Amino acid sequence: MTTQYHGKALSADALDQIFREARSYNGWLDKPVSDEQLHAIWDVLKMGPTSANMLPARIVWVKSAEAKAKLVDAVSDGNKDKVKTAPVTAIIGMDIYFHEELPWLFPHTDAKSWFDGDEKGRKEGAFRNSSLQGAYLIIAARALGLDCGPMSGFDAGAVKAAFFADEPKVEVNFICSIGYGDPESIFDRSPRPEFGKFNTIV
Amino acid sequence: MTTQYHGKALSADALDQIFREARSYNGWLDKPVSDEQLHAIWDVLKMGPTSANMLPARIVWVKSAEAKAKLVDAVSDGNKDKVKTAPVTAIIGMDIYFHEELPWLFPHTDAKSWFDGDEKGRKEGAFRNSSLQGAYLIIAARALGLDCGPMSGFDAGAVKAAFFADEPKVEVNFICSIGYGDPESIFDRSPRPEFGKFNTIV
Repeated sequence: MTTQYHGKALSADALDQIFREARSYNGWLDKPVSDEQLHAIWDVLKMGPTSANMLPARIVWVKSAEAKAKLVDAVSDGNKDKVKTAPVTAIIGMDIYFHEELPWLFPHTDAKSWFDGDEKGRKEGAFRNSSLQGAYLIIAARALGLDCGPMSGFDAGAVKAAFFADEPKVEVNFICSIGYGDPESIFDRSPRPEFGKFNTIV
Repeated sequence: MTTQYHGKALSADALDQIFREARSYNGWLDKPVSDEQLHAIWDVLKMGPTSANMLPARIVWVKSAEAKAKLVDAVSDGNKDKVKTAPVTAIIGMDIYFHEELPWLFPHTDAKSWFDGDEKGRKEGAFRNSSLQGAYLIIAARALGLDCGPMSGFDAGAVKAAFFADEPKVEVNFICSIGYGDPESIFDRSPRPEFGKFNTIV
């Protein structure tokens, strides 16, 4: 039986850490991130829900000087220094053929057959659900004491060619630097609207 | 100056609550969710990062019997009972004209001009970033002691016609029931792969 937490809120400090005080950093302290920390992020983020447990994200964690140089070449000018100075940048790819894994990822029904021959539906499902997984990655990294800097300014074709050349069924969704954010690298927070601006209760 | 949490992980219990023990529920306890709780979810989720602070999600929280009946008509057969019995179901819409709000949401540069005339780029940005916001909604609801049941099995055109008829620029991304999950309504967790299956460090 799973544990439930009905009516129990996380502490104010925990909500601050993962949402309210967390920021998207543009610069990074010179402090490394270990492979064990990347494994720990995955072990948390993989528990987040995706449709039919499709888990379409395919993640390349760019850490070595050589891989970093290749990624820097493929990002927009405004993002080159961010990738260069970040200890790690995660490339969140998405597998358009995720359905081939469904027989073991979603074993209690034949979910693969829902997607066979429906490339448009697979592209939509992969994009939506790998984006969810990207958000789980951001929250998981923050929950483990790290900071993030998500970016969508890059040449998707060039990133694909450099990092997924042997996996033609994987497209690139977005990238996200991870490390210990430099507090000098951020500006004032952009405004966040009140409920009534973008929400309706009916 | 923002508070940082470098090297400090959330408690095991908090990680269990938002990721490891949380489940997507198929059935709901007969216990209401208040408007104040929906406001509280928004006040947390709105702090999650989106590209250029675009915040493209437009959320309709379906709570009344009348609105619920309209939504039930538009979801697939397997989801009708879930929507019927859930205290609230959130419809996560996405505004393809989100760029019109950027002058005040992202005031330090002219981000609106990046998207003027680029409907393809706006659709992609709205889909990716409203999906991130949908993930933040799930984590925020869990963090506040609620459970979620996200779904993508519905007729998007019918949901749009029923709930966004006067907002032609809003498309529907996915829907998510919210309440107190019935532990009898879930099965064993689907498998989650080890790091090496879908991740590479380079």
